[in-house]
Amino acid sequence: MKYYPMPTSQSTAQAVILANGDFPSHPIPKAILHHNQKKLVCCDGAANHLLDQMLIPQIIIGDCDSLSLENQIKYEKIIIKIPEQNTNDLTKAVNYCKNNAVSSLIILGATGKREDHTIANISLLAKYISIIEIITMITDHGFFHVIQHPSQFQSIIGQQVSLFSVQPTAISTTNLKYPLDQQNLLYWWQGTLNESLSDHFDIQVNSPLIVYQAFVNPL
Amino acid sequence: MKYYPMPTSQSTAQAVILANGDFPSHPIPKAILHHNQKKLVCCDGAANHLLDQMLIPQIIIGDCDSLSLENQIKYEKIIIKIPEQNTNDLTKAVNYCKNNAVSSLIILGATGKREDHTIANISLLAKYISIIEIITMITDHGFFHVIQHPSQFQSIIGQQVSLFSVQPTAISTTNLKYPLDQQNLLYWWQGTLNESLSDHFDIQVNSPLIVYQAFVNPL
Repeated sequence: MKYYPMPTSQSTAQAVILANGDFPSHPIPKAILHHNQKKLVCCDGAANHLLDQMLIPQIIIGDCDSLSLENQIKYEKIIIKIPEQNTNDLTKAVNYCKNNAVSSLIILGATGKREDHTIANISLLAKYISIIEIITMITDHGFFHVIQHPSQFQSIIGQQVSLFSVQPTAISTTNLKYPLDQQNLLYWWQGTLNESLSDHFDIQVNSPLIVYQAFVNPL
Repeated sequence: MKYYPMPTSQSTAQAVILANGDFPSHPIPKAILHHNQKKLVCCDGAANHLLDQMLIPQIIIGDCDSLSLENQIKYEKIIIKIPEQNTNDLTKAVNYCKNNAVSSLIILGATGKREDHTIANISLLAKYISIIEIITMITDHGFFHVIQHPSQFQSIIGQQVSLFSVQPTAISTTNLKYPLDQQNLLYWWQGTLNESLSDHFDIQVNSPLIVYQAFVNPL
């Protein structure tokens, strides 16, 4: 059974993506951003702010409309322009990772700001799991994993946990306050507000499921 | 066909709920909060901050664990304690409104902070539409309406629009850049990133659908 540890300031992956939402403020995603610069793929909407902080990503990807002309010239060599409008910037970055054989990925800055973008970016995790093996999305409030097989999650007693199923599928859990036994979550609110009863919990599922754990020390 | 105007600083409804997410910062929800104090139902998690600003709601509702002891004593007469944990605070407030024959409702402060709460609060709109006739959720970035019949929306050319279907249902649209013709939206990301082509757009649907319009002047 795959084991998902909780992210720490030392977490790393084969690639880290910085998306266009709220720039990381929580100490954990902030530390991960800083020490993973050399494997950082930055969506172009987030690039100005990143570059202002003297953080240089490996690649800047997107239609680059929002990147200042000064930065477009200065960082020409690390910019990949993809003008097409059918996929959002995060998907362009994830596809770039896939094409570069990345199999483990941390996504930062993907929530906050416009709520429709937040929902899209979170739900897209269920699509990305078909092309990237291990994905962790870390925000200022908590973190998401996406699984499609039985999995075990490192946790803390009392930690808030929410499950989001993008399509009906039988889910079973152990060590959660409100257990599921071969149940479907038909609506987005149904799997929220659960709680871990131990230092780990297990989920049995055979179809994509998004698992959220709130930080125990939020901002 | 029901017509949904865009919210303005003057918008009102039979009741206004302030939930536990980000306290309103955008001028429109901020103004609505201020001039609707007399019909304001405040979730207890948001009450301390509201009361600090000398804004006195009609009712404070919730388990009241997070309300300071000082405020619990001072505002005893407007507090309704509901300790049960099976529904979230927003749902407790909406049920209070329903029990008081409210048929039009504005919800503020329901997004931001924890992403699982944001998703739950937005998706619950599809549940609330069975008990409250007209619901508008206004955030710092845009606003949500929830419909279950053919409807027309006031808009601005180029305004970003996203549609969220909580269960498969045939949707048709007019005046949107990426039109739908009796199509289902099976995944949460599928209806995002659309755009209005006119000063209004229409949606044909017969099952709950959540409609998001981004503010043209976001924060």
